[in-house]
Amino acid sequence: MKKNAFYAQSGGVTSVINATAAALILEAKKYKSKIGKVYAGRNGILGALKEELIDTSKESITAIKSLKARPGSAFGSCRLKLKDLEESKREYERLVEVFKAHNIGYFFYNGGNDSADTAFKVSQISKKLDYPINCIAIPKTVDNDLAITDCCPGFGSAAKYIATSTMEASLDVESMSETSTKVFILEVMGRNAGWMAASSALAKNSATDAPHMILLPEVAFNQQKFISKVKNIVKTKGYCVIVASEGVKNSKGNFLAESDRKDAFGHTQLGGVAPYLSSLINTKLKLKNHWAVSDYLQRSARHIASKTDLLHAEAVGIHAVRYAVKGMNGVMPVIVRGKEDKYTWSIEPAPLSKIANVEKKLPKSFISKDGFNVNAKAIKYLQPLILGEAYPKFLNGIPKLEKLKLIEVKKKLPKWKI
Amino acid sequence: MKKNAFYAQSGGVTSVINATAAALILEAKKYKSKIGKVYAGRNGILGALKEELIDTSKESITAIKSLKARPGSAFGSCRLKLKDLEESKREYERLVEVFKAHNIGYFFYNGGNDSADTAFKVSQISKKLDYPINCIAIPKTVDNDLAITDCCPGFGSAAKYIATSTMEASLDVESMSETSTKVFILEVMGRNAGWMAASSALAKNSATDAPHMILLPEVAFNQQKFISKVKNIVKTKGYCVIVASEGVKNSKGNFLAESDRKDAFGHTQLGGVAPYLSSLINTKLKLKNHWAVSDYLQRSARHIASKTDLLHAEAVGIHAVRYAVKGMNGVMPVIVRGKEDKYTWSIEPAPLSKIANVEKKLPKSFISKDGFNVNAKAIKYLQPLILGEAYPKFLNGIPKLEKLKLIEVKKKLPKWKI
Repeated sequence: MKKNAFYAQSGGVTSVINATAAALILEAKKYKSKIGKVYAGRNGILGALKEELIDTSKESITAIKSLKARPGSAFGSCRLKLKDLEESKREYERLVEVFKAHNIGYFFYNGGNDSADTAFKVSQISKKLDYPINCIAIPKTVDNDLAITDCCPGFGSAAKYIATSTMEASLDVESMSETSTKVFILEVMGRNAGWMAASSALAKNSATDAPHMILLPEVAFNQQKFISKVKNIVKTKGYCVIVASEGVKNSKGNFLAESDRKDAFGHTQLGGVAPYLSSLINTKLKLKNHWAVSDYLQRSARHIASKTDLLHAEAVGIHAVRYAVKGMNGVMPVIVRGKEDKYTWSIEPAPLSKIANVEKKLPKSFISKDGFNVNAKAIKYLQPLILGEAYPKFLNGIPKLEKLKLIEVKKKLPKWKI
Repeated sequence: MKKNAFYAQSGGVTSVINATAAALILEAKKYKSKIGKVYAGRNGILGALKEELIDTSKESITAIKSLKARPGSAFGSCRLKLKDLEESKREYERLVEVFKAHNIGYFFYNGGNDSADTAFKVSQISKKLDYPINCIAIPKTVDNDLAITDCCPGFGSAAKYIATSTMEASLDVESMSETSTKVFILEVMGRNAGWMAASSALAKNSATDAPHMILLPEVAFNQQKFISKVKNIVKTKGYCVIVASEGVKNSKGNFLAESDRKDAFGHTQLGGVAPYLSSLINTKLKLKNHWAVSDYLQRSARHIASKTDLLHAEAVGIHAVRYAVKGMNGVMPVIVRGKEDKYTWSIEPAPLSKIANVEKKLPKSFISKDGFNVNAKAIKYLQPLILGEAYPKFLNGIPKLEKLKLIEVKKKLPKWKI
C-alpha cells in the first residue's frame, strides 16, 4: 500500500545534512509503488506537530540535487526532545493525527543522540497507539558521538575544516612568532566529546607539527601543567598552537568557559574557552597570543566539505529509504568500517534502542599519555574521514545557492498548540 | 652590472603573500644579466639586519612554484618599523654593510603601510648613504588600507573567506532560529578600516539576505540604536546575523573590545568585540546568540583564496622585478582598476612618498545611512575582488605543503645586535 513519507532534520545542523535529504528524496522516487510524496517538516518535528509539511515534490530535480551543496538545514531544524509516550501522550497523539491526515507511513528523522531517542519513541507508536509506521533515524552530528556507527555524517567535513584551518593558521603564527604572536588558540565545538578537537591533529600530516596541544573535554584541565607545557613549547619551537574544545572542564567538572569571569554588566560571561586561555597566558606567561572561535563556521563550512563525509551522508539517506520500504522500524543506517588496512565502509541497520541517548566519547586509548594530545591510533581512525574534496559551485565569488520553493501541503487539521 | 636581490615579507601575513614571492623569484630568473640571486630575509627585514639571508636559488623550481599555494610567510615576517635615517642611522648603516657584503642592489619589501614607510626610507639610502639601491615596495595587506592602489593583494581572499563564511553560517542560524539561536555575531579583522567587515555584504549575492548588520570602525557604536535594530530584525526576519570589525569604537573613540570587562584575575580582558556584543544581547534582549571570531583563520585561509586576488599578488611581484631592472627606486607597483563596467585591472608604479603611512579607510559614500551596513557602491567596488577560485592541491585530506630547504647564505660579517 502506498504511503507518504515524513522527513525532518533535528538539532544542530551540519554542512552535509542536506545531502542526506537530497539522496533520500531522490531514492524515494524509485519506489513509486510504496512511497508517495516526501514531506519535509518545517523546522524539524515541529513541522509534523504544527502540520507544516513542505511538499518536496514541488521542487525541481535541479533544486533537490542542489541540496547536496547547501549547508544549514534546508527545511529548518529544531531543538525539541519528545518525552516518553506515557508522559506526553498528547504530542504522540497529535503526530498520529497528522500522519493519518496526510497518509504518512514512513518517518525519517535525521539527527543526533536526542533525535535517535525521539525516533525510537516514535517507532513505538506502531504498537502503543496502533498506528502502523516505519520509523528510521538517520545519523547526523558534527559531534561524532553516536553509538554503534563508526562515524557520524557531518563530522568528517567539520574535521576537515578544523584540520585545514589549524594548518593554515599555524603557518601564520609561525611566520609572526619571531617578533610578535607566540601562542595561537583555536576553540572548536564539542561540549562533551573531543572528536572535533582531536581532528586538528590531522594538520600534522603537513610539513608543520602544529597543533602542539589539544585540550579535550575528556581530560580535566590542569592549569599548572598547561602553563608549564605552553612555556616549554614556546621555548623550544618558538611558538605554540593550541586547539581547545569548548567543553574543557576543570577538575571539579565545571566548564572553563563558564568560570568566574564577569562582563561589563556584572554578569557571568558565558562561552569562550579561547579567551579564557588567552587571559591565562597573558597573566601567567605574558606571551603575546591570538585566539579564534570557529563556532558555527566549522559546522557550516560546506566549501571545504570532505568527499568521504558527503558520500556517507548520501548513503545513509539512500539506505534509510531502502530499510523503510523493506518494512523495517526503529533502526538507523550506520556506517561500518571494513577491517582492511585500506579504508572501506558499508552501511548496515542498527537498532535505535542501542543508540538512543548513548554518547560516544573519545576513547582513552586515543589520548596521549600527558593528556594534551591524541596518538597514532586516533590519527588512524580520523584520517580517512576527511579524505577528498567536494567543492560547491560558485557564483559571484561565493558558493551558489539554488532558490527553494518550500511550498507547504494544505492543512487538514485544526491548529494545535505546543 | 649584475647585483643580487633582497626580498622580505613584513607585518601581518596573507594567504597569497607567498604567491607574490614565487612570482618575483621566477621573474627575477628572466633577467640573468642584471639580477644574480634572490635572497629572502629570514623574518623580514630582521634577516637583513642579522645577515640571515635565505638563498632561494637552493630551492627547486617545484618548491618555488608551490609557494603560490602556501599561506603564512614562507621565510618568516616581522613587526619592526625602522625610524628615520637621522634617528637610527645605525640600522641603515648595517643594512648597507650587509648589502655591500652580499652584493645586493635590489631591495624588495612586501608589506603594508608601515612597510611602505620602511621601504621609502631605504630608498633614500642611495642618496643619503651613497649606496646605490633600487628599492621597490610591494603591496600586501588583508586590511586593504593602502593609498593609491585600487586594492591590496591579500584582501580579496580574506574578503572571499568572510563572504563565504557569513553566507554559510547564516544558513545555519536561519535553520536553528525557530527554537534556538536568534542572533549570530562574526568578528572579523580591521582595527581602523572596515574593508573586511564590509566584504561580508557580498554574502547577500546568494539567496540569503544576511548579514543584516555590519559594524564598522568608521562608525561610532551607538548601543541604543544597535539593540533596537537587532530586536527589530529578529522580530521581522526571525534571526539576525551581525558582522563586526574588531576595531568598532564607542563615541569616545575607545575600542568596544577593550572596554571595562575584567577577567578572573581582575585584568582587563583584551579583544573580543563578538563576546562583548553577545553579552550585550544576553543582557538587554535575552536572545540566544552564538558568536565566532575568525582572527588568523581569515587571513590564512588559502583554501578559499580569490583567484583575482591571487593574480594581483603574482602581478605585483612580477612588476616589482621589472621596475627594479629598469632602474626605478622608491616606487610600488599598484593595482589600477579600468574604467569599464566589466572589471579590468593593470599594474602601474606609484611613488612611495604618497603611500607611506597613509591609511585608506572605508569611504563614507560606501556606508548606508543608518551606519549599520554598506551600500550598492561598496558592493560594486568589492564584488570583482573575490571572483574566481584557486584551490590548492590536497594531500591526506588537507592542503599539500612542499618542504622548503630555507638554506642561509654563509655569513660574512660579525654578529650585530638589534
